[in-house]
Formats: sequence, C-alpha cells, structure tokens
Amino acid sequence: MIGVHRLLILSKHAKTYRELIESARPSALAIVDTPDDQVEIVFGEPSLIRPELPRLPAIRWVQSTWAGVEPLLDPSLRRDYVLTNARGVFGPLMTEYVFGYLLAHERLMFAKHASQQAGKWDPAPPGTLRGKTIGLMGVGTIGAALAKTAKHFGMRVKGFTRASESCADVDQYFHGEDRFAFVDGLDYLVTTAPNTRQTRRLVDAALLAALPARAVFVNPGRGSIVDEQALAAALGGGRLAGAVLDVFEQEPLPADHVFWRTPNVIITSHTAALSIPADIAPVFIDNYRRFAAGETLRYRVDFDREY
Amino acid sequence: MIGVHRLLILSKHAKTYRELIESARPSALAIVDTPDDQVEIVFGEPSLIRPELPRLPAIRWVQSTWAGVEPLLDPSLRRDYVLTNARGVFGPLMTEYVFGYLLAHERLMFAKHASQQAGKWDPAPPGTLRGKTIGLMGVGTIGAALAKTAKHFGMRVKGFTRASESCADVDQYFHGEDRFAFVDGLDYLVTTAPNTRQTRRLVDAALLAALPARAVFVNPGRGSIVDEQALAAALGGGRLAGAVLDVFEQEPLPADHVFWRTPNVIITSHTAALSIPADIAPVFIDNYRRFAAGETLRYRVDFDREY
Repeated sequence: MIGVHRLLILSKHAKTYRELIESARPSALAIVDTPDDQVEIVFGEPSLIRPELPRLPAIRWVQSTWAGVEPLLDPSLRRDYVLTNARGVFGPLMTEYVFGYLLAHERLMFAKHASQQAGKWDPAPPGTLRGKTIGLMGVGTIGAALAKTAKHFGMRVKGFTRASESCADVDQYFHGEDRFAFVDGLDYLVTTAPNTRQTRRLVDAALLAALPARAVFVNPGRGSIVDEQALAAALGGGRLAGAVLDVFEQEPLPADHVFWRTPNVIITSHTAALSIPADIAPVFIDNYRRFAAGETLRYRVDFDREY
Repeated sequence: MIGVHRLLILSKHAKTYRELIESARPSALAIVDTPDDQVEIVFGEPSLIRPELPRLPAIRWVQSTWAGVEPLLDPSLRRDYVLTNARGVFGPLMTEYVFGYLLAHERLMFAKHASQQAGKWDPAPPGTLRGKTIGLMGVGTIGAALAKTAKHFGMRVKGFTRASESCADVDQYFHGEDRFAFVDGLDYLVTTAPNTRQTRRLVDAALLAALPARAVFVNPGRGSIVDEQALAAALGGGRLAGAVLDVFEQEPLPADHVFWRTPNVIITSHTAALSIPADIAPVFIDNYRRFAAGETLRYRVDFDREY
C-alpha cells in the first residue's frame, strides 16, 4: 500500500499499546508483530529493540517506551534512524516517589512502625521538610517536577545541570566544577540525571564526603551515577544519614551485594516510575502525528550526547 | 504600674515562649510565672491552665498553644474571658503527615521494607495519588492546606463541613445529612474536624460501611470523631484497607487496646502536628498587639459551638 507506515511494537505491553494506538485511529499506520524489511517505525523497550535492529533495514524512527535508552547507545550499533525516548510523563510518579520517602524520613515512619510492632507508644517528635534544602542533580522535566513539589513544601532548591537554568523553581544553579559547592549544606541530594559519560560516578567518595552527615541521598535515576562501594562505606561509617535507592549498576541487585546489609539504605527495586502504557502511548501517538506530517519529533535523543 | 498587662505563661515550653515573646519587645507587658490576682492574660497549654482558673480573678484573655481546647470547655468552668486557640499554623505539618502516609500507602513502603529485610528484590508496581479521591471531614485552615496539596498531586477533593464552602481547592461540598454521599467513592477519608457535640462518633459503623473497601481512613484530628470499636471491626473484617491514627479516645493508647493487634493500622502517637514554640509564639504576639490596641482577637473560640 502506498503511503502506509509499518509499525512494529516490541514491548511486554504490546497488546495494550496496540489497543491504545488503534483507539486513537492514526492515519496510514499498519501495526505488525514481527520485523520485516518494510518496517519504518519501532515502538517499545530498548532492550527488546536492540537485537532486532539488524532485521529492520527500512527503519527510520524508534520511539522508546522508557526514558533510558542505553541498550541503543552502544557505539557498535547503527545510528541511521531517529531515536526518541519517553519524556515529560515521569514527573508526577517520580515526585510521589521522592517526596514519599523524604516524608518517611522526616516523619520517622520506619522507627515509629517498629515501635508499634513492639506495642510501644512513641511520641518522638518528627521533623519537617519546611526550611530544608534539596539538591537536584539533573533538572530536566523530572527535576522540574521535583523542584515544584519542593517549593510546595517550603524547601530551598539547588540545581546542578550541564548548562540549562530554565526551571524557575530552582533557587540557585551550579554547573560542571561546582558540584562541591552544590552539595554544601544539602539535607537531600536527588539524582535524576541521565546515564552519560559526564554523569558516570559523579556521586563519588569525594562528593559523598562533602555532603553533610545529616543528608539523605535519593537515586531514582540511573545506577551508574553513584560509586556504590563509596556509598556503602559512607553509610556504614555514619558519614551519611541514609540512602533511598531505586536503581543499581546491576539489576536485580545481586544477593551478595553490600547494600543488602548496609545500614540506613532503602531499596525499592526499580519501581520509582514505571512506564505505564496509558502514559506512554500518547507520547507515541503525538510523535506519530508529527512523523506522518513530516514535522520534527519531540524528545529526540542525541546519540553523541547520550540523552 | 498603670497600663501594664500581666501575662502568665503556663507551658512545658514556658522558658522558650518567654524568650520568643520578649524578643518581640511587646509594649506594656509584664511576664510572670505564677498566678496572682492581677494576671489579665494567660498563654499556654489548656491542660495546665484549667486547674489555675480559680486563682486568676482578673483574667480577661486566654491564648491556647494548642488547637484543641477541650480542657477549658467543661461547662462547670468559668467562661468570663476571651478564649483563643492556635490556628493557621498546623496546615504545613498536617499536610506532611497526611501526604507522607498517603504516599507510604500508594508506594507500598512497608511491604517493600519487609521484602528488603528478607533480602528480596520486590518489583511489585506501586500506585499513585493522581486521579484518586480524598474526602476531607472538616475544611478549616488545616483542611484547606490538605486540599491544596491534594490538588498538587492531581487528586479529586470532596469536603464535608458544617456550613462553609470557602476553600476553592475543594471540588464538591457536603453538609449535615450528606455524610454518606460524601464518603461514596473515596480512596482516602481524612478527619481534621474539631471535637464538638456535632462531630463525636461521626465516623461510626454505618459510615465506615459506606466507605469503599479500598479506602484508607486517616485521623490526625480528634480521637472522639471515630467509633474505635467499629473501626477495629471494619479493619479486622477486611472491609477497609487501612487506618492511620494519630489520636485516640485515651492517650497514650492503653496497652490492651484492640488497635495494637488490629491489622493494617498505623499508630503515630499524637505527633502529627506538635505545637512548636517558633510557630505558636507569633500567634500570641500578633494577638497581644491586637489586645493592647483594643482590637478584636483572632481565632476566638465560641464556648457553645466548642471551636
């Protein structure tokens, strides 16, 4: 058929995505289940797409259902297509995750839970987010959502970015070599920056040592941003109050990993912001409309910049 | 001394309150530590003020450090003075308490914590506040703060009040006999109404039965608002998903109380919004300025209405 675009969906939610896309009645789109030499568009999980790339000679555009596209950034892979990721949809879930655990920390939730299990009335006074300082390492759409909620709770917001200073809810920006000034005085350090050469091990032993001992580190972003051994050492030595970790260098976290026996660590098993088809399908549908109209796609990934 | 008002402070934080008040350099104020026949003003905890009332013949105004003034509402006590309570300051702390526990529920925090203790990677998908419905029983300054935060998280807000409909963040109001329509479809029921004849046992077996089984009841307000035995029965029978309770008919909660062995109850030992001198002193200082100037005081309690 002339003018019809063939779409291959490679996702564990393929059936749901197919229904959601078909219900939007996109023009001139044929959805297929297996690779062929006429597929122009692929929508799905990067880990499932990567092995199929050699069987997709006509590929022009890949839309990831995830924010992270690391499996497709391997320099040995082809880059002769437009890669777009899922963006702009994780802010609300990430905000619920981060502020849920910040409040759990301030409100002494786990300690009070233990008191209750022991049948003990526990009037220990909780803390408050009001007046505390949060540092956001990465201020994209997720960081901006976190900054807005931090302001809602009366917090001071410091932001660390490559260059941008576009979020008005950030009180003070830091870049590049300023990472030590950035973490000075923080009550909470939250990392949502993408996994790139610039962000790998940005949270290392030196940065952890520069954090106040009362600080809590929260990582719902990418495991690669932190030196895990240095983090375990800082927590084990009481030089950091706690860590809330959703992502790790290796997932699932291996049974013998030090974090399983590190004090004051919370492990949330990569569930901070799951890709929900009802959230992600509209990103594809909007981008497909742009694709069919010959317009620029949103959330394009720069293979060299790695995000 | 002519024109000097004598202030008696009766609080476990008396020293701090004295320093905070003196640092505001109020005009014509003499602060004393013990009752005498010239004391015109008393500032402190209602439970400490109540036994001193007979020794304060010149009393004109009592400012409570608490929101709750039940000890002073006993009909056997004198009412020949102006009683004002602490209001307008608990919203932020109550918001952190309520939304901390709402997020703990959505994010499966305690279940994930148990998985971690067992060394288990737990990818169970959490829920979200977005799109959920919260019902606020009582929409004073605390309820309004909760409504604003509920909107921040994308929730629908139903409000139950005696008469007022002044908070724009409430989507739908209910009054009086409409309490069953009010709880219909709620994901969360939060009670912050004061303890009055009208609110006693408002959350009874019939209202609990009208709540969806998925609902969570949160009570950071007054223990008297709920029928505790009916609540324990609803939770024990799985007809309610959970309860987060800060206040009780008797505090500390007696060792043999059914709540210590009721499933899906969280007990937080009356710490939701403690009266912090730095928050409460400004309420007194502002009201004292009004008192000295002969103006109307803020947050006056109606002895007959009981709040």
